[in-house]
Amino acid sequence: MTDKVQTAVVGVSGYAGAELARLLLHHPRLKGAPPVFAGRVDAKDAARGGIPLAEIHPQLADRNGSADLKQEPLSWELLQSRGVEVLFLATPHEQSREWVPEALARGLRVIDLSGAWRLNEADNRAVYAFADEGPNRPAEIKVRATATQAQAVYGMPELHRAQIAGARLIANPGCYATSVILALRPLVAAGIVDLDRGIVADSKSGVSGAGKPPTANTHFMYAADNLSAYGVFTHRHTGELLEQIGVGASQIVFTPHLLPIPRGILSTLYVHFREPQTAASVSRVYQDFFATSPMVRLYGHTLPQIQFSVRTNYADIGFQLDADGRRAVIVSCLDNLLKGASSQAVQNMNVMLGYGEAEGLE
Amino acid sequence: MTDKVQTAVVGVSGYAGAELARLLLHHPRLKGAPPVFAGRVDAKDAARGGIPLAEIHPQLADRNGSADLKQEPLSWELLQSRGVEVLFLATPHEQSREWVPEALARGLRVIDLSGAWRLNEADNRAVYAFADEGPNRPAEIKVRATATQAQAVYGMPELHRAQIAGARLIANPGCYATSVILALRPLVAAGIVDLDRGIVADSKSGVSGAGKPPTANTHFMYAADNLSAYGVFTHRHTGELLEQIGVGASQIVFTPHLLPIPRGILSTLYVHFREPQTAASVSRVYQDFFATSPMVRLYGHTLPQIQFSVRTNYADIGFQLDADGRRAVIVSCLDNLLKGASSQAVQNMNVMLGYGEAEGLE
Amino acid sequence: MTDKVQTAVVGVSGYAGAELARLLLHHPRLKGAPPVFAGRVDAKDAARGGIPLAEIHPQLADRNGSADLKQEPLSWELLQSRGVEVLFLATPHEQSREWVPEALARGLRVIDLSGAWRLNEADNRAVYAFADEGPNRPAEIKVRATATQAQAVYGMPELHRAQIAGARLIANPGCYATSVILALRPLVAAGIVDLDRGIVADSKSGVSGAGKPPTANTHFMYAADNLSAYGVFTHRHTGELLEQIGVGASQIVFTPHLLPIPRGILSTLYVHFREPQTAASVSRVYQDFFATSPMVRLYGHTLPQIQFSVRTNYADIGFQLDADGRRAVIVSCLDNLLKGASSQAVQNMNVMLGYGEAEGLE
Amino acid sequence: MTDKVQTAVVGVSGYAGAELARLLLHHPRLKGAPPVFAGRVDAKDAARGGIPLAEIHPQLADRNGSADLKQEPLSWELLQSRGVEVLFLATPHEQSREWVPEALARGLRVIDLSGAWRLNEADNRAVYAFADEGPNRPAEIKVRATATQAQAVYGMPELHRAQIAGARLIANPGCYATSVILALRPLVAAGIVDLDRGIVADSKSGVSGAGKPPTANTHFMYAADNLSAYGVFTHRHTGELLEQIGVGASQIVFTPHLLPIPRGILSTLYVHFREPQTAASVSRVYQDFFATSPMVRLYGHTLPQIQFSVRTNYADIGFQLDADGRRAVIVSCLDNLLKGASSQAVQNMNVMLGYGEAEGLE
Repeated sequence: MTDKVQTAVVGVSGYAGAELARLLLHHPRLKGAPPVFAGRVDAKDAARGGIPLAEIHPQLADRNGSADLKQEPLSWELLQSRGVEVLFLATPHEQSREWVPEALARGLRVIDLSGAWRLNEADNRAVYAFADEGPNRPAEIKVRATATQAQAVYGMPELHRAQIAGARLIANPGCYATSVILALRPLVAAGIVDLDRGIVADSKSGVSGAGKPPTANTHFMYAADNLSAYGVFTHRHTGELLEQIGVGASQIVFTPHLLPIPRGILSTLYVHFREPQTAASVSRVYQDFFATSPMVRLYGHTLPQIQFSVRTNYADIGFQLDADGRRAVIVSCLDNLLKGASSQAVQNMNVMLGYGEAEGLE
Repeated sequence: MTDKVQTAVVGVSGYAGAELARLLLHHPRLKGAPPVFAGRVDAKDAARGGIPLAEIHPQLADRNGSADLKQEPLSWELLQSRGVEVLFLATPHEQSREWVPEALARGLRVIDLSGAWRLNEADNRAVYAFADEGPNRPAEIKVRATATQAQAVYGMPELHRAQIAGARLIANPGCYATSVILALRPLVAAGIVDLDRGIVADSKSGVSGAGKPPTANTHFMYAADNLSAYGVFTHRHTGELLEQIGVGASQIVFTPHLLPIPRGILSTLYVHFREPQTAASVSRVYQDFFATSPMVRLYGHTLPQIQFSVRTNYADIGFQLDADGRRAVIVSCLDNLLKGASSQAVQNMNVMLGYGEAEGLE
Repeated sequence: MTDKVQTAVVGVSGYAGAELARLLLHHPRLKGAPPVFAGRVDAKDAARGGIPLAEIHPQLADRNGSADLKQEPLSWELLQSRGVEVLFLATPHEQSREWVPEALARGLRVIDLSGAWRLNEADNRAVYAFADEGPNRPAEIKVRATATQAQAVYGMPELHRAQIAGARLIANPGCYATSVILALRPLVAAGIVDLDRGIVADSKSGVSGAGKPPTANTHFMYAADNLSAYGVFTHRHTGELLEQIGVGASQIVFTPHLLPIPRGILSTLYVHFREPQTAASVSRVYQDFFATSPMVRLYGHTLPQIQFSVRTNYADIGFQLDADGRRAVIVSCLDNLLKGASSQAVQNMNVMLGYGEAEGLE
Repeated sequence: MTDKVQTAVVGVSGYAGAELARLLLHHPRLKGAPPVFAGRVDAKDAARGGIPLAEIHPQLADRNGSADLKQEPLSWELLQSRGVEVLFLATPHEQSREWVPEALARGLRVIDLSGAWRLNEADNRAVYAFADEGPNRPAEIKVRATATQAQAVYGMPELHRAQIAGARLIANPGCYATSVILALRPLVAAGIVDLDRGIVADSKSGVSGAGKPPTANTHFMYAADNLSAYGVFTHRHTGELLEQIGVGASQIVFTPHLLPIPRGILSTLYVHFREPQTAASVSRVYQDFFATSPMVRLYGHTLPQIQFSVRTNYADIGFQLDADGRRAVIVSCLDNLLKGASSQAVQNMNVMLGYGEAEGLE
């Protein structure tokens, strides 16, 4: 069959990359057209054609084919010779910052899982300290970055489905940001939240969110039997929250915590309403907002738990109301590596290429 | 030495009871005067003088003596014959409700770890559904309960040291309540919190807080690799928060979560200030409030983690301020079985008996 | 309906039942023919047609259909009216003991996940204490049990593929037994093991192996941060090991341990060889034995880990040799709920019905 | 100063070092004489007198003194000026190899927690690849090493109490080795084990055994929800087992596994007996062997669990016998950081200095 789209994945060695590989290898529209996997490959591995995927991720090994897949040395020539049309970058934002303009110039469509192109406001980008925006950089670099940013669409289909459909560059959202935005945007958009009294987003994430390189904070002895808050008032996902929910910096506090579990995010959101609400009225706001969104499961007036969504591609949302209907606690759960990263990337690809939004994800 | 106080513990079989036993057995003022352990003992065990502590809690066994200790059949005669002066109840609130008036009538001093006598306001007691307060109960029962409640002192030395010193009945605080009250009461008492904008208390506790009886929610498969919110707007520690912090029900939201760890509580508290604060001004409020409190460790403008306080008798408090000094995120940690239960009970005993407040706890 | 086989599952509420439901719902040969789920249903739930699967297992809920599935009240009439041909029993062995003869009499094919029909030797069955084999039972019950046992095939396709193909009753193996037998049977069958020096099987299993009912031993506080051996010299999987590996009771010791993880088994096996072996010679024995077995992954002279096989349908086997080739340590891993239970049941169904052995499992 | 012995600890920053600090700070014989803590200190920290212990290990901070303790820059002058008599080295074996001869020459007594001086047989030392034993090293280095080794006593008081009493250099045992030797040496010494049929030692350890530096194998994502065997037939504790149990390399197999828990070791030992034994006869062997050993708890014919010994200073031993008394499974548990490292070091100090063997450990 000739209409299979050829994909490529850079960064398969990380946790999100492994899940992305799994999803693309089993995607019904891509059967028989496995992604090209590309990345850093040393000379010894290059001599044998790359690093076998089964060595990088033993759990990806099976007996019918994927054992032959390899991560090959990354080059534009490789991507071109294989006819790659859609490029997934599961790379640090510094690399995405460098490669995306080049990829677009070469006609590739890009789905970037890093934070490089998510933020419209320069102020919000400050936490990423993009070198190409610095005062001493050549002007053309900055021009190129600005032009690239202008093409970027924030890759949350539930908010930006139409723009994603025609996009050439999709900035895949952050994991925390996805869990918070999906829970809050419907309420804020409906105009029922009293923003002056402030929103609290208390989020908790499993350790895979901290990435694969071993650090003091990902050591088992640090994370196990523990809980810690970090990045208070400063976490770099804050900018996404502000821009996508549509609130000011003084109207929300976001505190991430490191949970002693491998994966999963639970965000507990606290809002005041302008007018008293009922369980029915709040449910209706969510149902209307997500009416055409297959990857969000609404729990209504009950609460999801991390276990329900881990290893699924869904975001789960439920809430509880105060007796007088003036305050709500909303609980939002998802798998940080899936709806918080890889499966959202595939969902974006589906929308971008005109596939069913949930294909390969249910 | 003849002035050793004789203690007794009812409820040693639970998690808090085990820690209480350990603390009392090693308390420098009680050397050579181990507690009387009393509780339900079936006929077979009664025939051998009770249930050896080492069978109930293998980790309490050592080779120099405590192996001989036993839980004996509970009776007032037992307590009297052993000369018990201070009675610790680590029992369900229904039992504490029944036994405490009798114990007081018999001249015992009581430190009750249940929620039975913590609440001054009848409205706040509703969640405990005390049978002796019901409309169909004999009047004398209600009179007795009211008289007993009037004698009860809320057992948080950091707030009520003077009253505890002379108390005959100490209502030992709840674990969640301790972590939240210690973090918030100093700020509210100082008058710097904008209560109209609402306080959020997002708390997370290890599984031992749910008690020893096996239930669906304490099954390893439920708790492990999971996080769940529960008791939203309805948790029965809420009444303690309101009474002890000094806020109204509409001014605080408290959400507990079940953490996949054995022990430890971390509460993340969110407040708005009336006027901008600095790290120094907030630190000063805490330092002043806890100036004579040996069991609270202040982390200033850094954050404690659950691991720092687990298996210690301390409550740890730190905070972060927003850039403009209008909002704070406070993090409060403690071991739910120790400062959240047993070591706070020993601290109360120390104050009640005129010992050093931290004796046997450092 | 054309050629879809109608299945039924009794016992979907347990952990293995949930996995079995998931596998059958996604099986390519059963598309559009979901299993009938049957079991105990109280009057209130019966009135609404049964208990929604999404209430029993929230993680099974999705937005495209399975949310409508229900566990209906179990009866032979229900199974008959739905045209059930293959019955899966994920029930305690006492119930399987009672229902299987009846099911066979009614012409159903049965795949029983309990231990009820796994053992050929009456001595080995003693640990199950089958009431229908007792001295005071009516003779016809015993006759019926004997006749049923005679029809049973031990459901490990890697050992009994041909018999499974024609079987009407498949006794699905135990989880520990699967991990030990697959690792040892090839070596023993090849005649290279010195049985006189004894085999050691040291196995470790996640908590889901202990089942869903809350008990003291499945409490989070018991299992977490712990490891314990149990059932030493007495575990009831021992009979399966002896019969299927082909060794005597004095030739193997089997010790299970409870691991503080949700799922997964790792067995460490110790053997002496009659003659020195090489990595190549041992690998060849395994390769020959499993040449046509798609659900076993051989790691050769490297070692699998629990993580590699958890949430897969594979058994993983690797080994290390002593310097002189006289001794081997073999490591065998699988997911106790999948290859140790549910996916092996589906594998058996595939072989029994003439489907590809790995269909729906890769 | 009267008769307080001055100690010093090098390597307090590691997990065992932290526990050693805690034990020495609370040791009744060392009250008011805290250890000198010495190690690598950069210029900035040196300028403030060293690194506060409370920064290295927040859980060591308390309000009554230890907050003032610091790790100071290591030098012989420092140790001498403080009058250090007993030096604890919780350092890598390479450093212990270098420093111990110098420390002995300066008249210090040394308790070395590394593997540097544990092995009498050069063959067994090969796994440590001691540079000073290499063919190209100056002869005097080798002479010095040989002379030092000749002074070393293997620091397991249960086996070598008398020699430890007079020792100047104690080689503190390995954690795995302690758990295996204590369980097996009594049986082998009693001559009841059939060594020709082989002993199996299947050991499982928590992650702290792998040390504090972050590595791929100590990453939470590697260790959590996992179990893996490693070092099969090659682990460097093997030499200690052979020398201290008194068996040949062909008579025992030792396999360590990495458990997903912070701390604790459980070893499962498998032996054949020459003649049938009873529970009583085996118990008697252990009781006789450990009659004067306060830090070993015997469970007789029941089995200890990791939880019972974690955070205690004890080694726990229990066993189960086969029906015919020909085989035993022995289970041995301890805390790898305590009886497997730091508390054994303090126990050795106690014996060496003539204190009660269990002082500061119960």
